[in-house]
Amino acid sequence: MRNSVITLLTDFGTKDHYVASMKGVILSMNPRCTLIDITHQVSPQNIKEGAFLLALSYSYFPKGTIHLCVIDPGVGGARKPILLVTQNYFFVGPDNGLFSLVAQREKVKQVIVLTQSKYFLSKLSQTFHGRDLFAPVAAHLSLGIPPSAFGYPTHSWVKVLFGKPVIRDQKLLGEFLHIDSFGNLISNIDERLFSTFTKGHPVTIQVGKKKLHTLRKGYWEGKPGEPIGLFGSTGFLEISIREGNAHKTLNLRRGDPIIVSRISQS
Amino acid sequence: MRNSVITLLTDFGTKDHYVASMKGVILSMNPRCTLIDITHQVSPQNIKEGAFLLALSYSYFPKGTIHLCVIDPGVGGARKPILLVTQNYFFVGPDNGLFSLVAQREKVKQVIVLTQSKYFLSKLSQTFHGRDLFAPVAAHLSLGIPPSAFGYPTHSWVKVLFGKPVIRDQKLLGEFLHIDSFGNLISNIDERLFSTFTKGHPVTIQVGKKKLHTLRKGYWEGKPGEPIGLFGSTGFLEISIREGNAHKTLNLRRGDPIIVSRISQS
Amino acid sequence: MRNSVITLLTDFGTKDHYVASMKGVILSMNPRCTLIDITHQVSPQNIKEGAFLLALSYSYFPKGTIHLCVIDPGVGGARKPILLVTQNYFFVGPDNGLFSLVAQREKVKQVIVLTQSKYFLSKLSQTFHGRDLFAPVAAHLSLGIPPSAFGYPTHSWVKVLFGKPVIRDQKLLGEFLHIDSFGNLISNIDERLFSTFTKGHPVTIQVGKKKLHTLRKGYWEGKPGEPIGLFGSTGFLEISIREGNAHKTLNLRRGDPIIVSRISQS
Repeated sequence: MRNSVITLLTDFGTKDHYVASMKGVILSMNPRCTLIDITHQVSPQNIKEGAFLLALSYSYFPKGTIHLCVIDPGVGGARKPILLVTQNYFFVGPDNGLFSLVAQREKVKQVIVLTQSKYFLSKLSQTFHGRDLFAPVAAHLSLGIPPSAFGYPTHSWVKVLFGKPVIRDQKLLGEFLHIDSFGNLISNIDERLFSTFTKGHPVTIQVGKKKLHTLRKGYWEGKPGEPIGLFGSTGFLEISIREGNAHKTLNLRRGDPIIVSRISQS
Repeated sequence: MRNSVITLLTDFGTKDHYVASMKGVILSMNPRCTLIDITHQVSPQNIKEGAFLLALSYSYFPKGTIHLCVIDPGVGGARKPILLVTQNYFFVGPDNGLFSLVAQREKVKQVIVLTQSKYFLSKLSQTFHGRDLFAPVAAHLSLGIPPSAFGYPTHSWVKVLFGKPVIRDQKLLGEFLHIDSFGNLISNIDERLFSTFTKGHPVTIQVGKKKLHTLRKGYWEGKPGEPIGLFGSTGFLEISIREGNAHKTLNLRRGDPIIVSRISQS
Repeated sequence: MRNSVITLLTDFGTKDHYVASMKGVILSMNPRCTLIDITHQVSPQNIKEGAFLLALSYSYFPKGTIHLCVIDPGVGGARKPILLVTQNYFFVGPDNGLFSLVAQREKVKQVIVLTQSKYFLSKLSQTFHGRDLFAPVAAHLSLGIPPSAFGYPTHSWVKVLFGKPVIRDQKLLGEFLHIDSFGNLISNIDERLFSTFTKGHPVTIQVGKKKLHTLRKGYWEGKPGEPIGLFGSTGFLEISIREGNAHKTLNLRRGDPIIVSRISQS
């Protein structure tokens, strides 16, 4: 247990001392844990983006990993600090929706509101609970303190309904949730929903002014410069340009629509 | 001892091979140490900014941590390489003022000028002492070599007087030392000085063209878009905008003044 | 063996979940290995730049280090996944030229085409072999699986001839291969070739419209603002401006020429 993995996901960036302070606090309590950054470049205070990046990566880590997630616009206010315990993982962070997508994928066993201040730093700032509250809780958890020791159980915690795709007028209407650093546009349409909708029929995919007529298997199937649709490594429908940047070329953003239509076979 | 923590703070950025080369050198000498990045995005050759970020983070690490700091515009020239030993930590880097703020907070036990080349890489470049000199010294230190083995003790090393706030005409005059990645403006006025000056009286805080009339306890007390003053997690007076960017909105920079005035109760 | 070092070099950036997913996969298989980032900010799909940064850093790591390198524009297509075994290191990645410069410096003992899917993730995506194929192979390798178990040996793998300097009309003609984050311009002219060409005679160095008349030993020899030529920590001729940015000031880019001429002593 003392050898466990703690991941960090924040919107703190990497130019300041914030992330390092959290790591120092953890290592002071458990020098043997392994610290892995998921990312610190979530757009400032963008809970939805943080939730998505967490959902795409948490399951690749060893069972028992503690995911420490701090995107916390309400720090110091009324929002509660929580610990989510699922079958395989622990999630520590503010109760603001950050764990909504994880909870759609993992069986949540218990949620604890963190109240036991003996597991916090003795001087608790009003502005940096990542360092003063969440990091020490994660460190103590990695040392084997049981979840129930950190506070009281709750069933009332924040689940945000992120935009899910809808089917209307024989069209499957989705939106882009994330743009990665290659400029790939990743939508909220997953492979199962897509198959249910298309039933194997040919489709068109409308993104901005562009209409795509086939789905590809990999980036290598596209010609350089040509936009393609494919189910990427995330399991979601994405729009990509081989050796190019779909985001810039198509001038599309997070939140823009993607529309899948079955071709009528009259 | 072999299990110790070494932190790295540089202005090398993360796109080049420089930081990785330093880490490779350390792991070649001590495969068991834990390497933690404080930051590598200090503005190029900005000793003052590096000193401030180090001062804000070093104390959260376990006792015995070795802080390896390389912001080194004078590399290969006359500036000396040094090792600072304090009650709780080791600091390795160039003697150019980088440790000035640490020395205001930590009791310095000894300062060693690094001359023993047997602890350096055998081929010492003129341009990258981070890899060839400082990293190997940090690695050897983590293996238990005593500080005095690395060179000779000195009392003459560089302490830079960073701008301290002054009191003049019943005003407390400070300046902004750092802008974090959220756009929070962090000044050099600490909580103790502030209390000594205000003696609990109401104050106004002038920043640029903006006059603030109250001090807040946390970001959550501000309305979105409204600039607030508060003592943040750093212990220094900072100006912040909830869900916004104070740096951009107020168009203020590092070095700009912040003026605290007591409201006369006539 | 179980304690080994795995480095990561990619063009994935640090804002997405990609690198973290690779690390999670590795730690799930070998919780005890040490993961070190070389860089994830190689320009997207720029194999040449990745090869250069790898060549400049790999040799500083402990013997036995596994270098996991994923710059992979052809992912999912015909390019083969390979493992390069040299006297001191392992290199895992796509067969697209990424290891060309390493192979000029290290004695290559064997090259294995990775075909044994039992060492991959059970669900192999067409778009992210970094996570699904290369990371699991690196992890298994760190656990002591012998190279030959991963596939079949080959002698036919991709070596790219990167632009080498040429001598013509008594001039040594090189080009800039890399611009570091300080704006230093690093050329492909190494110290041995330079000495062979100059034979100790005085030279001029032409870069853009600027002609330099001396070679310096370190950055500290330059006046602030003045471009200087020197052999830096990379072993290649570079152009630098003390306390400045040569790239921006001289308006030079990767691929631009650098010309060394011996001064005729008539």
